[in-house]
Amino acid sequence: MPLSGQTTPGGPPLLGIDVGGTNIKAAVVDAGGVVRGHGSVPTEQELGPGAGLDRIEAAANAALEDAGVGLWDVAAVGLATPGPMNLKAGTLLCPSNLPGWQNWAIREAVEARFSKPTTLQNDANAAAYGEYWSGAGRDADSLVLWTLGTGIGCGIILRDAVIEGEHSHGSECGHIIIDCRPDARVHPGTGMRGTLEAYCGARGVIARARDALNVDRGQSAMHERLAGGAKLTPKLICEVAAEGDELALGILTETAQLLGVGTVSILHTIDPDCVLLAGAMTFGGPGTTTGDLFLDTLRLEVKRRAFPTVAEHLDVSFAGLGADAGVVGAAGCARRAFAG
Amino acid sequence: MPLSGQTTPGGPPLLGIDVGGTNIKAAVVDAGGVVRGHGSVPTEQELGPGAGLDRIEAAANAALEDAGVGLWDVAAVGLATPGPMNLKAGTLLCPSNLPGWQNWAIREAVEARFSKPTTLQNDANAAAYGEYWSGAGRDADSLVLWTLGTGIGCGIILRDAVIEGEHSHGSECGHIIIDCRPDARVHPGTGMRGTLEAYCGARGVIARARDALNVDRGQSAMHERLAGGAKLTPKLICEVAAEGDELALGILTETAQLLGVGTVSILHTIDPDCVLLAGAMTFGGPGTTTGDLFLDTLRLEVKRRAFPTVAEHLDVSFAGLGADAGVVGAAGCARRAFAG
Repeated sequence: MPLSGQTTPGGPPLLGIDVGGTNIKAAVVDAGGVVRGHGSVPTEQELGPGAGLDRIEAAANAALEDAGVGLWDVAAVGLATPGPMNLKAGTLLCPSNLPGWQNWAIREAVEARFSKPTTLQNDANAAAYGEYWSGAGRDADSLVLWTLGTGIGCGIILRDAVIEGEHSHGSECGHIIIDCRPDARVHPGTGMRGTLEAYCGARGVIARARDALNVDRGQSAMHERLAGGAKLTPKLICEVAAEGDELALGILTETAQLLGVGTVSILHTIDPDCVLLAGAMTFGGPGTTTGDLFLDTLRLEVKRRAFPTVAEHLDVSFAGLGADAGVVGAAGCARRAFAG
Repeated sequence: MPLSGQTTPGGPPLLGIDVGGTNIKAAVVDAGGVVRGHGSVPTEQELGPGAGLDRIEAAANAALEDAGVGLWDVAAVGLATPGPMNLKAGTLLCPSNLPGWQNWAIREAVEARFSKPTTLQNDANAAAYGEYWSGAGRDADSLVLWTLGTGIGCGIILRDAVIEGEHSHGSECGHIIIDCRPDARVHPGTGMRGTLEAYCGARGVIARARDALNVDRGQSAMHERLAGGAKLTPKLICEVAAEGDELALGILTETAQLLGVGTVSILHTIDPDCVLLAGAMTFGGPGTTTGDLFLDTLRLEVKRRAFPTVAEHLDVSFAGLGADAGVVGAAGCARRAFAG
């Protein structure tokens, strides 16, 4: 959807850039939060910050070309990256997905390269802001977005503000504790015991499935697939759940219930309008039988455990922007800071 | 400390009113957050809203007289009451401590009676705002206050804003879930399973102590005191802990650790500067051996479980305003709304 060099009625477009460990995605986003052009290049973070800046520019140029606008049309640039970072300083610290970019003052570097005011935001927070601005949460005054994948990303938006925290560790709700007992699961990455991610991150789901398989020695569809050489992955669990395998359906249900426990803790802290689900670990996501079952089970668990007043008025849904949430949200953060 | 009819340099004083199930406390608070006069009368909520308004006025008049100022000197009135309430509408809903005041539009009634702009705030939130404004959190940009008693009150302040929630249920962190398992403790009041209050509210502490006594059939000091006719109360647990009784010390330690679990979940959601402890259930509180042990154990648990970046820069301390936190915070909320 080229802009033909014109600005939209709501103001000039923004450039949103979402840096991942594998790819850098860029988008030209209009003032209404609609993507007008996409670009994507491999991150190649191992080449270091200098090359990284070139890759970011290449992604941006591709998006500008796709949108049919020039950099001069753009009001500001919004960056989203994985943490940990120092949001106030605009620097990356030691992101595990970007080891080649450690301690890089990325905001300043991008600002200098594009000569545009630039914001830096955590990628999970940016995705939440994107959904808030123009996605499934656009009618909400506050929302929580869960991005379920290898890790459990979270972003919380309260009345147009991102909960960033004093040390850039706000909205890190994948690391809230849902099981206080001494024998709770330990997260293999963080070493933290009993956290939501230890149970519902990809590795936690696989570990729980393995435990269930060890207990249940029957001949489930999952046993058969594994005996046939299949690897125990979230995708496999989802597939056999869709075939009606009870063991896999039990894992799906338990995952949704545990996510419900964590969600209720956030509801009783923030009391938002809306909770959204995104990411690969949503058991197929919207429009699939297993995805809908996952969402419905989560809704039920929230209703069962939360204060009625909180649960009654809460919208629990799938997110709406898909893979664009990060670039849209990054652009939205730039708009709020410089062009809102 | 009479004001002698003069306003302080920072602006006119405020009237803070903290309504409890037993007493209504009022205070004249200067623009710097210092109490200049106190008043207190029995709530007698069973007499209904009409009498309640008279009681509120009586408490206010006592505070005005104590401060040596007139109502005409006061810029605004801040009310704090127990929930549940509708903060936007300024009405009480069905507070269990104020059954005689159900569905009362208290903010409007007080505003009309005093002819002063009036705010309504949840009492736990008001106490947190008081500590933030002029108490132990006055140097913090954000804080969490735990008020430990029969229930576990919580208030969260983020950059001068109270987290009220969309349905007046923000900062209700006594009801976050710390134990997701099916056999977790059930809160005797709310019926909720695995919540922080189910473990660390007064009744939860007593229930855990009773369980420990049933398991440990030895002759602890606690066994002896109970055999001698003493009642199992938090006060008794605290007393025998101070005498070095291991069973009681175990309860103290476990309570602090479980509160630590809940605290870490909030830290990974909000990432504040400061966490404060107040209330009767702090095992003696500041200046006592058991109170200091309780605080130190909480600090240790937070350090053990939270992200290092979050825990490293966090101040975990006792609150500073004692029983004045509610009236000071209520006054502070009025100041922020009308005279800030």
